[in-house]
Amino acid sequence: MNDTFLKACRGEKTDYTPVWFMRQAGRYLPEYQKVRSKVDFLTLCKTPELAAEVTIQPVDILGVDAAILFSDILIPLEAMGMKLEFSESKGPVLYNPIRDDAAVSRLKKIKPEEDVPFVMDTIKILRKELEKKVPLIGFSGAPFTLATYMIEGGSSKNFLNTKKMMFQSPELYGKLMKKIVNTVISYLSSQIAAGAQAVQIFDSWAGILAPDDYKEFELPYVKKIVSSLKKQHPETPVIYFANNCAGIIKDVKKSGADVVGVDWRIDIADAIKRLGKKAAVQGNLDPCALFSSGEELEKKIQDILIKAENAKGHIFNLGHGILPETPVKNAIAAVEAVHKYSKRG
Amino acid sequence: MNDTFLKACRGEKTDYTPVWFMRQAGRYLPEYQKVRSKVDFLTLCKTPELAAEVTIQPVDILGVDAAILFSDILIPLEAMGMKLEFSESKGPVLYNPIRDDAAVSRLKKIKPEEDVPFVMDTIKILRKELEKKVPLIGFSGAPFTLATYMIEGGSSKNFLNTKKMMFQSPELYGKLMKKIVNTVISYLSSQIAAGAQAVQIFDSWAGILAPDDYKEFELPYVKKIVSSLKKQHPETPVIYFANNCAGIIKDVKKSGADVVGVDWRIDIADAIKRLGKKAAVQGNLDPCALFSSGEELEKKIQDILIKAENAKGHIFNLGHGILPETPVKNAIAAVEAVHKYSKRG
Repeated sequence: MNDTFLKACRGEKTDYTPVWFMRQAGRYLPEYQKVRSKVDFLTLCKTPELAAEVTIQPVDILGVDAAILFSDILIPLEAMGMKLEFSESKGPVLYNPIRDDAAVSRLKKIKPEEDVPFVMDTIKILRKELEKKVPLIGFSGAPFTLATYMIEGGSSKNFLNTKKMMFQSPELYGKLMKKIVNTVISYLSSQIAAGAQAVQIFDSWAGILAPDDYKEFELPYVKKIVSSLKKQHPETPVIYFANNCAGIIKDVKKSGADVVGVDWRIDIADAIKRLGKKAAVQGNLDPCALFSSGEELEKKIQDILIKAENAKGHIFNLGHGILPETPVKNAIAAVEAVHKYSKRG
Repeated sequence: MNDTFLKACRGEKTDYTPVWFMRQAGRYLPEYQKVRSKVDFLTLCKTPELAAEVTIQPVDILGVDAAILFSDILIPLEAMGMKLEFSESKGPVLYNPIRDDAAVSRLKKIKPEEDVPFVMDTIKILRKELEKKVPLIGFSGAPFTLATYMIEGGSSKNFLNTKKMMFQSPELYGKLMKKIVNTVISYLSSQIAAGAQAVQIFDSWAGILAPDDYKEFELPYVKKIVSSLKKQHPETPVIYFANNCAGIIKDVKKSGADVVGVDWRIDIADAIKRLGKKAAVQGNLDPCALFSSGEELEKKIQDILIKAENAKGHIFNLGHGILPETPVKNAIAAVEAVHKYSKRG
């Protein structure tokens, strides 16, 4: 197996910089669309054979150095008792958003093996099929990010309900976050037990918090998750991706994660300076850069590789999920360029 | 006239910290809604008596230390030849978005006094009515922010068309930006000539650029505008608000603006450390904090005031526009708290 990705996560020397793309299993791939055309999104997540198939597609098509489980961060919220739907027009909808103590109290403790068996089954299939290929990354949403969906009932523009709960009912918010933390810990722990060789915590909305609020209302919960995982599975790298992190990076680094994933709105050299030798770094090409090709794309990639030379470890990635309109040939060229220009020795 | 705001812009000592709120003339005020119920948004912008009326409302109701012209950043684009509409569902729509050389070539040079006379007339009315009250701020969109609307044809999620032009046709992008820069310079210069006592450049979308791209594709154009304005009107403070600026603040400070406005996703103490004595700072309470009241709201305000004590100058503001759902009484309490806790012996 190509273990370059795992080595880089641990800050060990590698022959070249490993690369994978967030949302690499997705709509930009005709092969994905073919599978997706037969079933709706949630069914795809819940059918292990199909979820495994689309997980592997980018490994074969792009030549990336890691696979990431095909799923959605909202899946465990269903297991906690919320009703989840994906609407073509509105995106994810969680019915009966959590706004009071009774709603928080009703949330169930999850047993991943029983409540989301399809996730564990997908992982088991994948470990077999990826055996001679690349490592498998499991994932979960970060507690604050999951809380926003639970409180808002879906996507949001200003996250007003979430912030109202944070500011006006901090105890209720804390009670909710505790339940989410327990969910995330057991969810990720089960994924590792099932075969995930690294896990990523997606904090898609961390960057909408003022730095003092991030420190108070998210960081302690992320730390709790990371430390619990590291205690149970000391060898499994934990990646923490905090989106729009430029204003909070000095606190993000306190998460305890082995790898900090950064978005494209921070200079990766700045991020590395702030992280020091605390964590390896993952990132951070603007997903829109994949609409460029040739020299122009290569130059952008080289810039990042050069800036990241002194990182504790560097995993090349986009600064956010790959866009559905992305030309596949440019994504392939990007992977090749990362490998070519980072070759050492 | 209460000139506390102008003094703070210039970095002079003030008896207390001046405060105003972005979008302070707006939907959260029943008095605004009453005026707006009679006319559509664009008509309101283009009717000097009404635009002046809503501009003054927050001065009287909240007790803020500055008024800002009621208008919209897209107004001058109409004068350049684009067809503009505000749709209740989709927000602003610019027909025939700019995608090629012919479209850029067709854009007209504007003569603000002839093309947008209603803006100058509004300013003239306001200067008379505000004579014994507070200074008047004029404004414009920043060149990149205006370019995104022109290229995308409205609001956008990923700004893909804009970035495609930037990355793939940098010459065309440069040609467009040159035209926008000329528009912004003459537009703001005319506003100052008509009576605006300070001007703010709104860079709502600066923060979606990677730092290197900001440096290449926006900063030089902002610098050009600021230096031209400072040459023509050396006494008039220029405020540059770069939204989501945490990753680009070290370049934002090179804009030459007297005041840098920062959003809430950067710690204002960090911003001030980066700005040094180059510029005064404006900001940066999370607009969602105005849903808190009493001690909780006061504490958030005090935190910012304390952090900003060593700034070259500090104008208190929100980190983004006031939200339509904001309780007016909390906005009034916030202004009072800023004045009370910043009072200097």
